[in-house]
Amino acid sequence: MNKKAVVKKIENLAKKIYEEFEFGSPSIEFIVRGSLKNIEYDVGKDIIRLKKSLGKREFFNLGHVRKFTQTIMVAALAKELLEKDKTASLREVYYQLKHTIPVVNENTFEEQAESDAIIEDLERTLGVIREQMHIKADRRGSVYGDITMRDRKRGDEWNCAKLGMGGWSIPSTIEDIDIVDVNTDYVIVVEKDALFERLVEEKLPEKLRAILISVKGQASRGARRLIHRLRYEHRLPVLVFTDGDPWGFYIYSVIKRGSMKLSHFSEYLATPDVKFIGMTMDDIEEYNLWNVTMKLKQVDEKRVKELMSYPWFKNNKAWQRQFRKMLKWKVKIEQDALASKSLEFVAEKYLPEKIEKEKFLT
Amino acid sequence: MNKKAVVKKIENLAKKIYEEFEFGSPSIEFIVRGSLKNIEYDVGKDIIRLKKSLGKREFFNLGHVRKFTQTIMVAALAKELLEKDKTASLREVYYQLKHTIPVVNENTFEEQAESDAIIEDLERTLGVIREQMHIKADRRGSVYGDITMRDRKRGDEWNCAKLGMGGWSIPSTIEDIDIVDVNTDYVIVVEKDALFERLVEEKLPEKLRAILISVKGQASRGARRLIHRLRYEHRLPVLVFTDGDPWGFYIYSVIKRGSMKLSHFSEYLATPDVKFIGMTMDDIEEYNLWNVTMKLKQVDEKRVKELMSYPWFKNNKAWQRQFRKMLKWKVKIEQDALASKSLEFVAEKYLPEKIEKEKFLT
Repeated sequence: MNKKAVVKKIENLAKKIYEEFEFGSPSIEFIVRGSLKNIEYDVGKDIIRLKKSLGKREFFNLGHVRKFTQTIMVAALAKELLEKDKTASLREVYYQLKHTIPVVNENTFEEQAESDAIIEDLERTLGVIREQMHIKADRRGSVYGDITMRDRKRGDEWNCAKLGMGGWSIPSTIEDIDIVDVNTDYVIVVEKDALFERLVEEKLPEKLRAILISVKGQASRGARRLIHRLRYEHRLPVLVFTDGDPWGFYIYSVIKRGSMKLSHFSEYLATPDVKFIGMTMDDIEEYNLWNVTMKLKQVDEKRVKELMSYPWFKNNKAWQRQFRKMLKWKVKIEQDALASKSLEFVAEKYLPEKIEKEKFLT
Repeated sequence: MNKKAVVKKIENLAKKIYEEFEFGSPSIEFIVRGSLKNIEYDVGKDIIRLKKSLGKREFFNLGHVRKFTQTIMVAALAKELLEKDKTASLREVYYQLKHTIPVVNENTFEEQAESDAIIEDLERTLGVIREQMHIKADRRGSVYGDITMRDRKRGDEWNCAKLGMGGWSIPSTIEDIDIVDVNTDYVIVVEKDALFERLVEEKLPEKLRAILISVKGQASRGARRLIHRLRYEHRLPVLVFTDGDPWGFYIYSVIKRGSMKLSHFSEYLATPDVKFIGMTMDDIEEYNLWNVTMKLKQVDEKRVKELMSYPWFKNNKAWQRQFRKMLKWKVKIEQDALASKSLEFVAEKYLPEKIEKEKFLT
């Protein structure tokens, strides 16, 4: 969807409200935000989807008027951003709109959480993601590999394997980035920077013709969009490599199926056929890593049980097996722990062997 | 100091210990780690320096033998890394060395904190920084601007203004990076990514001929080395732009004078003549930002009082004035808060005006 189309959507919303003022009670319809209660797991597509239940905010309703007004303010700012061809961070949106309304002496927004929520509501109301409204999330993550990109707006062009060990830093929005040329066979997503640097140092991207993406914990929206585009624009298979703990497993889950909160845009942000390469509980046995496991804490245990009950893990036998082993053994394992074998082990044995034998969880 | 010289230092240490075994009690001398108690503030150089007090670890001493052995293990690994021309993260070092010693049934290292501390001790014993031993800290931070860099080892060359909005991601060690060409007049260090992206979007680096460095909170060692080198290899003045709170002020302080913990290498990591451009308490008055200040929390207040008492802030009238205002008004201000004026305000008015009038704290 191009800029003009998004502006048009905002104008249509404004027009509708303006006309409703004639008749009495203007309102904004919105789709209720995703949570475990109102999402559904699409088994066929292996994706989390929002069960759309409509809400309504009315201007002449004391309980609604604050959020109604806030929505109009955010929509007006988004329109301005689009027309000026600027982008703004979530925090900037908050500060731009925060002020005290005279006479009633009320603040438009008290906290950023308020404006963040309104931005998400507006995404669902308009059916566009915030990046299309030129509002950016935080950026995080790096890319290394033989892939050439171009910044459409600025005209810059670069190859992500020619920027030194550090690779290319993924911006908060990649909607202006074209993927010009890809000379690789697949994508490996890595949870931690240290592993990313290890694999670059060991020349794994060159040896296996792979693109490496470091997500630094939970993948940012920019990183998820990039993974999605590499999969669907360039048909590259994607492998995810995280710690063997519930937090690592959920990083994989979000890349694959989307998050509950953003379930209204799973089709846009999720990449359903990514595969999980490790670390698994089986690895601990297979590579005898008992000496470098960590004790499963109570908070980890609680989280494992939550994951086990999610619809998309519930009927997945292979994953349930991992969860049960974790609970039985009461251990977790970091990807860095492979260094206990040797620094090269992860690049020379662990990953190539798993890829060759296709030892993946899906 | 080149690789060979570092290897030589490690070999000399090993040789000394080996020879001492002949006479009875081998020992390793080390310099006690920096803390508020054993550092001194060098007023002339405006830098924190370690008051060197020597410690000694003896092999035939039950209280020392664990750390003694750990030091030998880390030194041996560092030598191996240098000879193989590999680098390792702090966590990889921990996992590489962690194992159970048979017979005594004792673990070499229980936690990463143990190996981290030994690495720091060894830095002071050998007089080299960990990067020179090929051991890396975490990486964080980005660079944007008309500066050309080359990775000596890999032969890559790039310009940091030609990689799209994201800029170049600073790796954990920049010892292999040459700064080939610099077409700018100064460096602006920014605390937050969102501000970094704002300034890139507003074309401030082009308009003011500046290099932008985003440090993302406390500056990483890689970022601090880069700032240091831009100052001393290329004579660029450096301005630091952070939140107006004790944490932002301390980011500036560490870039300028080094941290207490790393005071043994201040000359290498610190950049004494950086200047602080904002945010200040005066800014709140000058630009009427009262509406977007935040309440000073108890933990902030405690931290302000600590900063006030540090030797390098104690006799600095301009800084004491800021601290007192902060405690009196009980507010702090984020750099993002400038967006309340307009998105462009920070790039079109705030920074250029402060630079033109040289309104800096030093």
